[in-house]
Amino acid sequence: MKIYNFEDSLLTDTQRGIEIVAPHLKKVEGIYGYVDSSFDDSYIPVISGGGAGHEPSDWGFVGGNMLTASITGKLFEPPMPEEIIKVAKAVTKKKRAFFIIKNFEKDVRVFKQAIEYLRNIGWSIEYGIVNDDISVDASSLRKYRRGLAGTILIEKIIGTLAKKGKSLVDLKMVCEQLLPETKTIGLAFSDSILYKKSCHTLSLGKDDIYYGIGIHGEAGYRKEHWQKSELMAREIVNKMRLNFRWQKKENVALLVNNIGKISPMEELTFTADITELLELEGLNIPFIKTGSFMTSHDMSGISVSILRLQDKWLEYLKQPSTCYAWPNSI
Amino acid sequence: MKIYNFEDSLLTDTQRGIEIVAPHLKKVEGIYGYVDSSFDDSYIPVISGGGAGHEPSDWGFVGGNMLTASITGKLFEPPMPEEIIKVAKAVTKKKRAFFIIKNFEKDVRVFKQAIEYLRNIGWSIEYGIVNDDISVDASSLRKYRRGLAGTILIEKIIGTLAKKGKSLVDLKMVCEQLLPETKTIGLAFSDSILYKKSCHTLSLGKDDIYYGIGIHGEAGYRKEHWQKSELMAREIVNKMRLNFRWQKKENVALLVNNIGKISPMEELTFTADITELLELEGLNIPFIKTGSFMTSHDMSGISVSILRLQDKWLEYLKQPSTCYAWPNSI
Repeated sequence: MKIYNFEDSLLTDTQRGIEIVAPHLKKVEGIYGYVDSSFDDSYIPVISGGGAGHEPSDWGFVGGNMLTASITGKLFEPPMPEEIIKVAKAVTKKKRAFFIIKNFEKDVRVFKQAIEYLRNIGWSIEYGIVNDDISVDASSLRKYRRGLAGTILIEKIIGTLAKKGKSLVDLKMVCEQLLPETKTIGLAFSDSILYKKSCHTLSLGKDDIYYGIGIHGEAGYRKEHWQKSELMAREIVNKMRLNFRWQKKENVALLVNNIGKISPMEELTFTADITELLELEGLNIPFIKTGSFMTSHDMSGISVSILRLQDKWLEYLKQPSTCYAWPNSI
Repeated sequence: MKIYNFEDSLLTDTQRGIEIVAPHLKKVEGIYGYVDSSFDDSYIPVISGGGAGHEPSDWGFVGGNMLTASITGKLFEPPMPEEIIKVAKAVTKKKRAFFIIKNFEKDVRVFKQAIEYLRNIGWSIEYGIVNDDISVDASSLRKYRRGLAGTILIEKIIGTLAKKGKSLVDLKMVCEQLLPETKTIGLAFSDSILYKKSCHTLSLGKDDIYYGIGIHGEAGYRKEHWQKSELMAREIVNKMRLNFRWQKKENVALLVNNIGKISPMEELTFTADITELLELEGLNIPFIKTGSFMTSHDMSGISVSILRLQDKWLEYLKQPSTCYAWPNSI
């Protein structure tokens, strides 16, 4: 971390920046919450959130055809239930919302508390818990299925459907179809100073790779000595094949996410290696994006998300968004 | 550098990635050159290029309302004159082009050689040499005025004007107005392994900042111990004020460019600090972008570009582009 004022002001400094670069966001006073100011309360709002330190998630995806609002907590800590409730109330008068939650124990707890409260006061709420991380071993399947960058693909599809006027039941149904078809593996090359102060440390040596890490520095499934890009890509595609059990000619969307400190040359090299290995598997990949979608502040790493496409999902992914961080380029 | 196959394949690996993520680009066979496949030869093509290692420059800005074609050399080395000529011929049958060249000695030499050759065989060519770097001391003014990320703003405006059907003379005239109004200062926090192998090394300690560096690791104007973001921003705004001699209420565009290894939180913090200091100067800033525009592979740093806006330049900056790396978000 090279650019900051005080460690204590990291979040408020980031928020000052957000308000400057994304003026279409309406700040929810007193918290790290943003609402799409173009939202007219005619369709169901889609809300997501989690810890800070993963920018441009989630505020960067607030805008037409993606999220309606975001709520962020402290660094690597989810918001409080009261903050989630405050954002929901700031978004809509219609007492209804769809939440997209990442599968981290603390995140799930606070969002469920907020949802329970809102339901008790008469709100209609549905939600999906994204558990795209497949860095699992058989004995700890539940523990390791965290919410990672695959969340962004789900937010895009659900956000687009919400804007089309779909019902809560419809959104819930599509989300439940999307969840098992969205899989991610991350890998890290370095810890960060900030992790070392928090509960996690990856204890990585200078030339180590750690496959399967989480975005708060949670342990992965295997530590190895550095390998060339193609071999890293092969490890990830092998894991994906085992999990997806895909058939030739299936359509998938691919998101290669820069967790941090990876140059464009590296992003492109890795995207090419992953894509070519998936094509060797006989898959069609009509949607490929690379860039910084869900980072982990001050860490070096990359993640690969694959979504097995069904029906109209590709069309929804391709709809432009007015949010800050979705790449609308052709 | 963590993700690569072989150092020798860095460029071809990057090109494999480009062809996957930006399928609207037509590759010029045998070289690192790309042409906007939507170009219909009805307006004057705008071509830029330089060394590799600065991705997404320049290929990422090839598309409607920006560049028509790009040509890239080896790592931190410009293309050869024959490669520039080959790209120009691949772009247009109409023997006319506008070149945007960054002010590095080798770049200027090869582009001028190519332009001389093309003019000798009957082409109409105009060009601009971007020298936005103001990291100068009085005695070496010429030497240090390199072409940096301000080039991107000039490419946007000239590319939009070209697409509107402006003549070569018009493009030249606007470019000459833009050049003195576009100023950049970069700063680096680290050298890269690749620099150390090439002719430049910044010799930076772990907690050093080097103000005024170039994107190939050229020396800056002052090395200092790390400071907080606001003080770094102040140093840059002070240099800008001395160079621009701006008046209150002038309009400027601001581009905060991630040279590499800076997280979104850091980009946003720095953007906020720079913006607020410029506002304290009484300036209006109707255009602000931050992100990775012109990187320096495997280096840690950031740069600030300011363009004093005139006439319709803001409108041209705001026109969407179909290129890969221009942020079309609102």
